[in-house]
Amino acid sequence: MVDLTSMDLQTIPAGRGVAIELSSGSEIIVINTHGTQVLDTWAFNLDDPSEYMSMEHTRSRLSRLSPKVSDNLFSNRRRPILKLVEDTSPGIHDTLLCACNKEIYRELGCDDGHRSCESNLHEALSFIGLEIAVTPGPLNLFMNVPVASDGTIDRAPPLSRPGDLVTLQTVMDTIVVFSACPQDVTPINGAQCIPRDAHYTIIAR
Amino acid sequence: MVDLTSMDLQTIPAGRGVAIELSSGSEIIVINTHGTQVLDTWAFNLDDPSEYMSMEHTRSRLSRLSPKVSDNLFSNRRRPILKLVEDTSPGIHDTLLCACNKEIYRELGCDDGHRSCESNLHEALSFIGLEIAVTPGPLNLFMNVPVASDGTIDRAPPLSRPGDLVTLQTVMDTIVVFSACPQDVTPINGAQCIPRDAHYTIIAR
Repeated sequence: MVDLTSMDLQTIPAGRGVAIELSSGSEIIVINTHGTQVLDTWAFNLDDPSEYMSMEHTRSRLSRLSPKVSDNLFSNRRRPILKLVEDTSPGIHDTLLCACNKEIYRELGCDDGHRSCESNLHEALSFIGLEIAVTPGPLNLFMNVPVASDGTIDRAPPLSRPGDLVTLQTVMDTIVVFSACPQDVTPINGAQCIPRDAHYTIIAR
Repeated sequence: MVDLTSMDLQTIPAGRGVAIELSSGSEIIVINTHGTQVLDTWAFNLDDPSEYMSMEHTRSRLSRLSPKVSDNLFSNRRRPILKLVEDTSPGIHDTLLCACNKEIYRELGCDDGHRSCESNLHEALSFIGLEIAVTPGPLNLFMNVPVASDGTIDRAPPLSRPGDLVTLQTVMDTIVVFSACPQDVTPINGAQCIPRDAHYTIIAR
């Protein structure tokens, strides 16, 4: 497990989102502190947020469903926006599924006040004065979404362990948003269905 | 092959796009006339185009990479927007890859005037007086994108045959856009790399 005491760690509170402004070349280390927490992740060009990380462009450029260490992640203009430079987890991350939103929780019988990764994205952006009309498909870090040979998509608890971390490097001035997924009905955040805090630290350039 | 002579067929010209306004419950039959043509497909809520067909929401609702006959296709608000009611092709359609855009053709060494599915979408919408800021990930009808067990994505010529058709039913008042993909460098539109006309006809309700 990462030595949490030696780092200037910031918290991504369980079920909530954070938006972080980063200059190009910065690295952000995001830690799955409890091992079971999915982190929906977005990136926007700081100078023009209509350019954002796009999973369909990333899959197209990588010719692979999910990124691996040393892969770039691409924007909707096919430019590198982030680079995956380190991953101590088993490397299972999802690019296929939408962020959870209020409609999902309605389907699951929750009340309309249930937090969601979609509302977390927009709330976090509002805290830095930004309003974005769309919810891009997220990079779902640590989310375990096996795809069978017939194309069937499953959802399973994360395979990551406490302290597993991913380091992302910014390739342009970027707003990165993480949402510690508030899903507490299905076991996507672990068999206990309890959203947990995650942490991050920034190595600025 | 479909009896083209008995239908009031409209043309989707090779390499170009069309936008079609349809009331709820209409059916649109789209014909892969030459069998080799990929058709990037979008759908927007006619009353509020900020609601649009979303591949990440569709995969989430279907728990499958691609839709099959009798599946709904879902919007970014998780509502059914289209229904796949008929498919005479082998059923190979892609939901993973972005529309081709000018950046792809630059990578392939084409000049900036090369048409793309992304520019076709926005041109077709402009013909009906609409401007949309985003390019949603399309449903790529007839596009053959095999996914290997290690997550590697390939691109292969379509398996559809001349006259294969797909019928889509609208679940709300909808703008449907088709782009007969102008890709003529890679064999995604067949080994000859020649974009072809496709056709459609509407059964209005």
